[in-house]
Amino acid sequence: MTDKIVNYLKENRDTHLEELTDWLAVPSVSALPEHKEDVRKGAEWIADSLTNAGMDNVKIYETDGHPVVYGDWLKAEGKPTVLVYGHYDVQPVDPIELWESPPYEATIRDNKLYARGASDDKGQTFMHVKVLQAILKSEGTLPLNFKFCIEGEEEIGSPSLPKFIEENKDLLAADVIVISDTGMLDRGKPAICYGLRGMCAMQVDVTGPNSDLHSGLYGGAVQNPLHAITELLQSFRDENGRILVDGFYDNVQELTKEEREAFRALPLTEEALKNQLGVTELTGEEGYSHIERTWARPTLELNGVWGGFQGEGIKTVIPAKAHAKISCRLVPNQEPDEIIEKVKAHIEKHKPAGIDVKVTLFDKGAPYVTPFDHPAIQAAARSYEKVYGVPTAFTRGGGSIPIVATFDQMLNIPVVLMGFGLSTENFHAPNEHFHLENFDKGMETLADYWFELEKSIQKETTTK
Amino acid sequence: MTDKIVNYLKENRDTHLEELTDWLAVPSVSALPEHKEDVRKGAEWIADSLTNAGMDNVKIYETDGHPVVYGDWLKAEGKPTVLVYGHYDVQPVDPIELWESPPYEATIRDNKLYARGASDDKGQTFMHVKVLQAILKSEGTLPLNFKFCIEGEEEIGSPSLPKFIEENKDLLAADVIVISDTGMLDRGKPAICYGLRGMCAMQVDVTGPNSDLHSGLYGGAVQNPLHAITELLQSFRDENGRILVDGFYDNVQELTKEEREAFRALPLTEEALKNQLGVTELTGEEGYSHIERTWARPTLELNGVWGGFQGEGIKTVIPAKAHAKISCRLVPNQEPDEIIEKVKAHIEKHKPAGIDVKVTLFDKGAPYVTPFDHPAIQAAARSYEKVYGVPTAFTRGGGSIPIVATFDQMLNIPVVLMGFGLSTENFHAPNEHFHLENFDKGMETLADYWFELEKSIQKETTTK
Repeated sequence: MTDKIVNYLKENRDTHLEELTDWLAVPSVSALPEHKEDVRKGAEWIADSLTNAGMDNVKIYETDGHPVVYGDWLKAEGKPTVLVYGHYDVQPVDPIELWESPPYEATIRDNKLYARGASDDKGQTFMHVKVLQAILKSEGTLPLNFKFCIEGEEEIGSPSLPKFIEENKDLLAADVIVISDTGMLDRGKPAICYGLRGMCAMQVDVTGPNSDLHSGLYGGAVQNPLHAITELLQSFRDENGRILVDGFYDNVQELTKEEREAFRALPLTEEALKNQLGVTELTGEEGYSHIERTWARPTLELNGVWGGFQGEGIKTVIPAKAHAKISCRLVPNQEPDEIIEKVKAHIEKHKPAGIDVKVTLFDKGAPYVTPFDHPAIQAAARSYEKVYGVPTAFTRGGGSIPIVATFDQMLNIPVVLMGFGLSTENFHAPNEHFHLENFDKGMETLADYWFELEKSIQKETTTK
Repeated sequence: MTDKIVNYLKENRDTHLEELTDWLAVPSVSALPEHKEDVRKGAEWIADSLTNAGMDNVKIYETDGHPVVYGDWLKAEGKPTVLVYGHYDVQPVDPIELWESPPYEATIRDNKLYARGASDDKGQTFMHVKVLQAILKSEGTLPLNFKFCIEGEEEIGSPSLPKFIEENKDLLAADVIVISDTGMLDRGKPAICYGLRGMCAMQVDVTGPNSDLHSGLYGGAVQNPLHAITELLQSFRDENGRILVDGFYDNVQELTKEEREAFRALPLTEEALKNQLGVTELTGEEGYSHIERTWARPTLELNGVWGGFQGEGIKTVIPAKAHAKISCRLVPNQEPDEIIEKVKAHIEKHKPAGIDVKVTLFDKGAPYVTPFDHPAIQAAARSYEKVYGVPTAFTRGGGSIPIVATFDQMLNIPVVLMGFGLSTENFHAPNEHFHLENFDKGMETLADYWFELEKSIQKETTTK
């Protein structure tokens, strides 16, 4: 990367922030039907921005939901292609009264940009556009080929994107995908998330007698659905947190020695987590650290359990029904559909006497991991380190970003998660903001990365 | 009992029903503050009725809540004393739109008297007053001494009555207590309930992390309060329904061979119960029939369990808290306070790691049983049989009427539950009614009983 590029970014900082402020003023809330037109405005804004930055073939693709914005620059002949994914939709702003400045009027306080979408994900998507513009303006060309895929439904679970990818595999073909929609380890501590857990979720409904019963008149002689669901739910786990579903761990990819060592070296202590959560003790699967348990071990968690009387005092009832919401976090190489079948078989096998059980399935998403030592990951780490002056942490995430696994599976190319957010930046909450330190350093890091990446990977696909 | 008494009851039937209709018109709903004056009117009405029937010392005693009506007739020198308990308060009438005739305008359809309180308990209390009046008018005297204690807070749990009894032990001293506030086995099948289960109830609150957590980011490394409460609740019972609380069964009085045989002879089949409840299988403590399980075995039941997400779909949350409502039904000779301590000790011992547990106590009431072969019980059985022409069933109840145990413990005399209601008569529900067949036969039975009882028991206390 040249000084010219860095200087361009510095000289145009105010202009860039003004432009971003203009985009942040568009309330592109994908969840709310009344903002449908605003979501489209958000798409048009970034399409224009891509064109202004020098991208070609910019187009707004219709879907069954909100549109997808595409643009590319494919003049680096013989070079690999990068697909940059981002999203232009944002979360709702309620409770509005908790915002210290209006959510759609970007405001800078303490070098932080406050606005809905500042960090998640307009701010980070915008950085990618401006970095390519800076390189083009400074150097007249780009070191790699680029494609943008910027969707408008990430905050509602990307319902239209899988179909769009499936139908546009050639359009989106690339050698590596880069996504900036995650966070750093901490302020000043860059991190690359190279794995995410997958998920499957379901509801279990237990039905006993045909109506609520008086616990005096019938208690003792008829199965109580609350006892039954308790028995069933307890059968899922042993007291050391190990899941007892037959075959649950069959395909689980164990961590490598290197990964475990790298996790141990991270400044994420048990003590800090206990303090953060206000608990005196952490629990979980034996033989694994708290980091390994959340990043690389599967879980079966109860997200909701209910039945019977929940009011003040006592009502001596045997409820007719009891319910539970269950979700599993999955790790490579667990298959969501296979795990669902195993959990259903477990429920069938452990169904208590005297009740019926119904299982309803919800969302699912595959787990994802890019090999730790992939050249595209290592190149990103070097760029972070150059700009931030400290080694890059290699992390995995306990959560699930289904679209990452979708890209991984459909396009079969590595995904590099280079996030610049901080966990304190109130994504999805009032007073979302983006620390401008990472706006500035992040763009420098990305600019450097494209040159590092050009040196590190070979063109593998035919881009059209 | 003489024919004169029976004839008096027949001749005055219409007058009695008119009088009862007058009482039923008073909306003495103890639960609703707006009916406070009506509750007092209900007390005044029955006080007047006692006076008109020939009772002495009729008085309305104030309490911290609604008043208690007292009256006596103590001229049977050297004879035992009967304390008749009843209540003049009624349940609310909502949902009013489901009543086929106005709840406070008693209406006869199909020889059934429809009105709030017709059966529970104005109708049954009124029968006692009219029976004594009939005997006095026919014979000029009564075979026993009588005291009435008619309260106005039964439908709200009798909060003032224990104090009233404690402060008026001499006033209420008697040799036997008779209560008509329960039901028959079925139409034409009289029953004497000679035992009731007691109760203790509590809420268990489990607290884990200091706020709801994302199950992806933290799942696996921190105790989930829903898993913890599931583990704790499941520790209470084995898979055969036996309660695993240390010492829970220590003082449980086993059924006698005679009781078990009598229960087996009752026309209450497992098949009928399964059909009624709509279940394919009954469950419960091994070694006991469904009747024994509900009438004479203790339980620990979950009346409510809740925590986390209960809405549509999935929310991948680890909730900060989880809750359970628990109640135990107790049998002689379990002490509620002792059982509470044992359950609390169990919770302390089985508390899962990584959470705090708080226990809040609610209502409690002692179990109660009058020996099966007590002369006062056997006399009642004979009177029923004479009037109804079939043997009397000896039953126990799975529910709890705390005031019965209170009388039992405070006055230390047998309680005879001679109920004339039918389980189909909609107590506490719209269209409450009282089958007049049991109004007529019930009064005959009671009239006969006083003479049978006079022959069966001796005066044991000094009545003042």
